[in-house]
Amino acid sequence: MKIEGRAFRTIWPSADGACVEVIDQTLLPHRFATRSIKNSEEAFTAIATMVVRGAPLIGAAAAYGLALALKGDPSDAGLESAYRRLASARPTAVNLRHALEDIRAHVAHLPIGERAATAWRRAAEICEEDVENCRLIGEAGLPLIEEIHRRTGRPVNILTHCNAGWLATVDWGTATAPIYMAHDRGVPVHVFVDETRPRNQGAALTAYELGQHGAPHTIIVDNAGGHLMQHGRIDIVIVGADRVTARGDAANKIGTYLKALAAKANGVPFYVALPQTTIDWTIEDGVKEIEIEERDGAEVTTMTGRLDSGEVARVAIAAPGSPALNPAFDVTPAELITGLITDRGVAPASREGLASLFPERRAA
Amino acid sequence: MKIEGRAFRTIWPSADGACVEVIDQTLLPHRFATRSIKNSEEAFTAIATMVVRGAPLIGAAAAYGLALALKGDPSDAGLESAYRRLASARPTAVNLRHALEDIRAHVAHLPIGERAATAWRRAAEICEEDVENCRLIGEAGLPLIEEIHRRTGRPVNILTHCNAGWLATVDWGTATAPIYMAHDRGVPVHVFVDETRPRNQGAALTAYELGQHGAPHTIIVDNAGGHLMQHGRIDIVIVGADRVTARGDAANKIGTYLKALAAKANGVPFYVALPQTTIDWTIEDGVKEIEIEERDGAEVTTMTGRLDSGEVARVAIAAPGSPALNPAFDVTPAELITGLITDRGVAPASREGLASLFPERRAA
Repeated sequence: MKIEGRAFRTIWPSADGACVEVIDQTLLPHRFATRSIKNSEEAFTAIATMVVRGAPLIGAAAAYGLALALKGDPSDAGLESAYRRLASARPTAVNLRHALEDIRAHVAHLPIGERAATAWRRAAEICEEDVENCRLIGEAGLPLIEEIHRRTGRPVNILTHCNAGWLATVDWGTATAPIYMAHDRGVPVHVFVDETRPRNQGAALTAYELGQHGAPHTIIVDNAGGHLMQHGRIDIVIVGADRVTARGDAANKIGTYLKALAAKANGVPFYVALPQTTIDWTIEDGVKEIEIEERDGAEVTTMTGRLDSGEVARVAIAAPGSPALNPAFDVTPAELITGLITDRGVAPASREGLASLFPERRAA
Repeated sequence: MKIEGRAFRTIWPSADGACVEVIDQTLLPHRFATRSIKNSEEAFTAIATMVVRGAPLIGAAAAYGLALALKGDPSDAGLESAYRRLASARPTAVNLRHALEDIRAHVAHLPIGERAATAWRRAAEICEEDVENCRLIGEAGLPLIEEIHRRTGRPVNILTHCNAGWLATVDWGTATAPIYMAHDRGVPVHVFVDETRPRNQGAALTAYELGQHGAPHTIIVDNAGGHLMQHGRIDIVIVGADRVTARGDAANKIGTYLKALAAKANGVPFYVALPQTTIDWTIEDGVKEIEIEERDGAEVTTMTGRLDSGEVARVAIAAPGSPALNPAFDVTPAELITGLITDRGVAPASREGLASLFPERRAA
């Protein structure tokens, strides 16, 4: 997608192949800068400090991190030690471990002298696969937006929550892929962006990337979506997911569930976009079986932003001494979800719907 | 209610009767200070700049403002000019106009020499009436909390949105009146306080007043309430209202509707607390008939808080250049409301329910 008119990905190898470049997302939306990752330890730091964030992008960065480690020390001991170090950068991101296992499986059987080059090529492939998955999600979701535009003849108003955008992946994003695809193909869209408290990924990241790509959008507080749906101002909701169960319950950023309830109450279609890797086939009941991370209350009681001077500062916004509770995700039950937009196509959020897209899982 | 162990109201006449004292709410929650209002123009400024806010408190301040004006110029011309000036301080607050009309009706027929003293006494009565209305709301709502405690044997978890607390009234508050009453009488309560973006009245004011009064509470982002209800962590929701229709639809701070949907979906009782003056008997369908104020988008894209230095500053929190939409209220349809807690008692949110409490309105 584009930043200041120029096409970017969130991660790419440098021209000389000596390092990997990323967008420093800790500075967004206040400043755009890229950063070079020259070795495995810098990859670890970039992941741990959220210079790169978003499950697919974390996976891509970890893959390159392991490849960089093997340039320095391609021995079995070097491979294992870099694997363990990188795997510990973010404890819960499943893509992180998947990407590291993928690289290890591709190189462990190779002669030491071939490992680094193979790992580097495989890291690039992992990035390409992510881009292709997101592109397929876009192709699958695009007709939903086109149909609304054909029916209404006006710009399609889409609500999204948090950042399931290209900044969380290598390119395209998940929830945003159909949106960018519609926009790029001339289907008029307008995105209502939930600011997404407490970490504000909507106002800070989704609005930033939509704005840079030229996609019309408006930031709203998380409280406003129900009111807008009540008044017919939202045509479709598209959100991402952190984990989807075998029957189609979807865990996503806290607050998603409230928007799904409002969509159901007001007859607004509610879609969850996800690559198939997000499906956890081992669980059914998301509300009962998915443990919800509770993060530091300081994320609720403080806010980071730009002072008039341009300096970025943190301010305390709550009554001093008041405690805060900060559950990071919630679960939207399948019955509130109109459909799942996957890299294999769109299906109802149900065991049967998912089985129709993934017949190989039915057997299992 | 109490601040640092001392009983306060939000407004009170000075000991010598020369002026009226208020809590400066623009400094909360970062600093507690009171301010003297010595004349009508200072009352205008206090209302216009939100030193005092909350419909009932605005009414009380305007009443004292008009009384102060009559001390200086009790003539017909003085009365009319002060009336007009004060009425323009906040254009939409219905209590403001009601209080001013009340004072004028009490003094306009009097000899000029008696007007100031009568207005001053009447302003004090308006304050007492507000306190009594809130106390009656508290008495009406208290049994709802007591019943939950009797049934569960543990602290009652109450969710509230925005600030329908004593800081918005003269004392007790509306939604908070049953909560303070339960707390003061030894019924264990714990309040989940929605931070209430964009203006953050929950985290800033409700959490402040609950904390100062010693009532256990926890701040959450507006996104979190649905998740907590899904997991049985909320026993009852109590919110205030800006306007309730003759059939029981309730306009309140943006986001209230989303919590009502979640309460309905999870079998959590959802109550709206209001003095009878909040009922608009002229309208039925709140979603269709209540116009929703859209405020400045800068309230969404910026946030005010306390820097580490103690200084209060405003920071920009959104992607630069992204537009924002800021609807200030939403409407919760009566069918989502378990009951209305009024100064006349609790009734179902319906035409019949309201008629049972206000039989004189049935005739009309």
